[in-house]
Amino acid sequence: MPRSRAEAMYARDLTCQSLGITLDEVETGRARVSMTVAETMVNGHGIGHGGFVFLLADAAFAYACNSHGPVAVAQHASVTFLRAAEVGEVLVAEAVERARAGRGGLYDVTVTGSGGGVVAEFRGHSVTLAGNPFPARS
Amino acid sequence: MPRSRAEAMYARDLTCQSLGITLDEVETGRARVSMTVAETMVNGHGIGHGGFVFLLADAAFAYACNSHGPVAVAQHASVTFLRAAEVGEVLVAEAVERARAGRGGLYDVTVTGSGGGVVAEFRGHSVTLAGNPFPARS
Amino acid sequence: MPRSRAEAMYARDLTCQSLGITLDEVETGRARVSMTVAETMVNGHGIGHGGFVFLLADAAFAYACNSHGPVAVAQHASVTFLRAAEVGEVLVAEAVERARAGRGGLYDVTVTGSGGGVVAEFRGHSVTLAGNPFPARS
Amino acid sequence: MPRSRAEAMYARDLTCQSLGITLDEVETGRARVSMTVAETMVNGHGIGHGGFVFLLADAAFAYACNSHGPVAVAQHASVTFLRAAEVGEVLVAEAVERARAGRGGLYDVTVTGSGGGVVAEFRGHSVTLAGNPFPARS
Repeated sequence: MPRSRAEAMYARDLTCQSLGITLDEVETGRARVSMTVAETMVNGHGIGHGGFVFLLADAAFAYACNSHGPVAVAQHASVTFLRAAEVGEVLVAEAVERARAGRGGLYDVTVTGSGGGVVAEFRGHSVTLAGNPFPARS
Repeated sequence: MPRSRAEAMYARDLTCQSLGITLDEVETGRARVSMTVAETMVNGHGIGHGGFVFLLADAAFAYACNSHGPVAVAQHASVTFLRAAEVGEVLVAEAVERARAGRGGLYDVTVTGSGGGVVAEFRGHSVTLAGNPFPARS
Repeated sequence: MPRSRAEAMYARDLTCQSLGITLDEVETGRARVSMTVAETMVNGHGIGHGGFVFLLADAAFAYACNSHGPVAVAQHASVTFLRAAEVGEVLVAEAVERARAGRGGLYDVTVTGSGGGVVAEFRGHSVTLAGNPFPARS
Repeated sequence: MPRSRAEAMYARDLTCQSLGITLDEVETGRARVSMTVAETMVNGHGIGHGGFVFLLADAAFAYACNSHGPVAVAQHASVTFLRAAEVGEVLVAEAVERARAGRGGLYDVTVTGSGGGVVAEFRGHSVTLAGNPFPARS
């Protein structure tokens, strides 16, 4: 998508802004975002909360699946956690389109950490909306 | 698990504390948590970020799969988004154990919203650790 | 769905017929099928092939998601294998509707075996088609 | 794995043999199998049964995750159906390793058809066993 469109989307994306998630790269069918694991992002075992790892991957997925133009939303996603993320670590999530069929899209997102190795593998299914997103709700 | 153990886990859970996620109920194989969707939790389309919906479900899952005693962590999880969450809505995630086999556990989490209806269905796979969680990292 | 409609669907279902999968019960949003693990259904480790366990669950899912009337097809499914199935064992797959939203449906299928205990847990996402299934292909 | 080991595994794999699934290629972390959709492989809508598409992908996954030597079994798998498979079509499933961590492995399998395009995308999680597979059962 044109960089300007991604920036307009990011400008409304208060989740990314408030968590310090940066949009490092977007092109058609791909996106890369990154985030530093903050001290407040630990779970009850004192390690990085898997929910934030998923959220970061989901953010990359959102920019990738919206890169074609029409508004797209997540319908289903799954994540496999390969190792724990640690406080202070910089996580990078890279989304790549795997398939498209009709209004649906399938994206793979790999989350790597500055500590080395893969933290998580994510796969997301998107669907493009005909008009405005969730118009009945606005 | 004894309420005291869940409370000790919650006391270290800075993610839940900082996001205003409350631990409403825990018993063996079950847990319920809730959270209000804050204004900063919207995505680039202006609706509740799916990442936070997942995170809430994942938190309920964590308390449920740790309710048996041994430390358990998430290995894999999937989520289906049924409708968007809105700012100001109170989301409730209820985790119920579906199966256990060896060191593995399978939990279903339903996220409902104060706006009515189911927001998301989550399924998580946990694995119990032999000793301390991720000892090589501490 | 009316029993007659399920029977008409079963009459065309050569997979179920040739594998000896019987349609034991169908009602709106639910279905139960069963199959005996044949000697030819083992994998390279000599145990019941997970592919047939999935197929059985998928068959129950198909009858459940088509029970509302409109033609529905599987879009996505996941399965967790809890124990191996053995030759000669009778497997029963029971599908229960978990959620519906728009044209989509979410179904949980539990596969139990005559040897006792749960063999697999399956979750399927269906989508109803507007007209004939895959009309462009016939 | 040595070709001889894959062949020994295939020699016991009555599922692949009876369905006409051929093992076209195996190397460390990868495998490719293929199958022709038989007339008996249709579902109640008269199209290729998704259960057989999954089974084919699962077979490729099995040879790939066992290619390292130790016996590995499927723990969890998910599949996305992108288009229906048709009778007479030759389906090819190609499995590629995505990640390994401890005893676990993650594999992506793409199923393509002779009619063109991707039929399904599969992702499987394997776990290696310490000794013989399911020794308590033999």
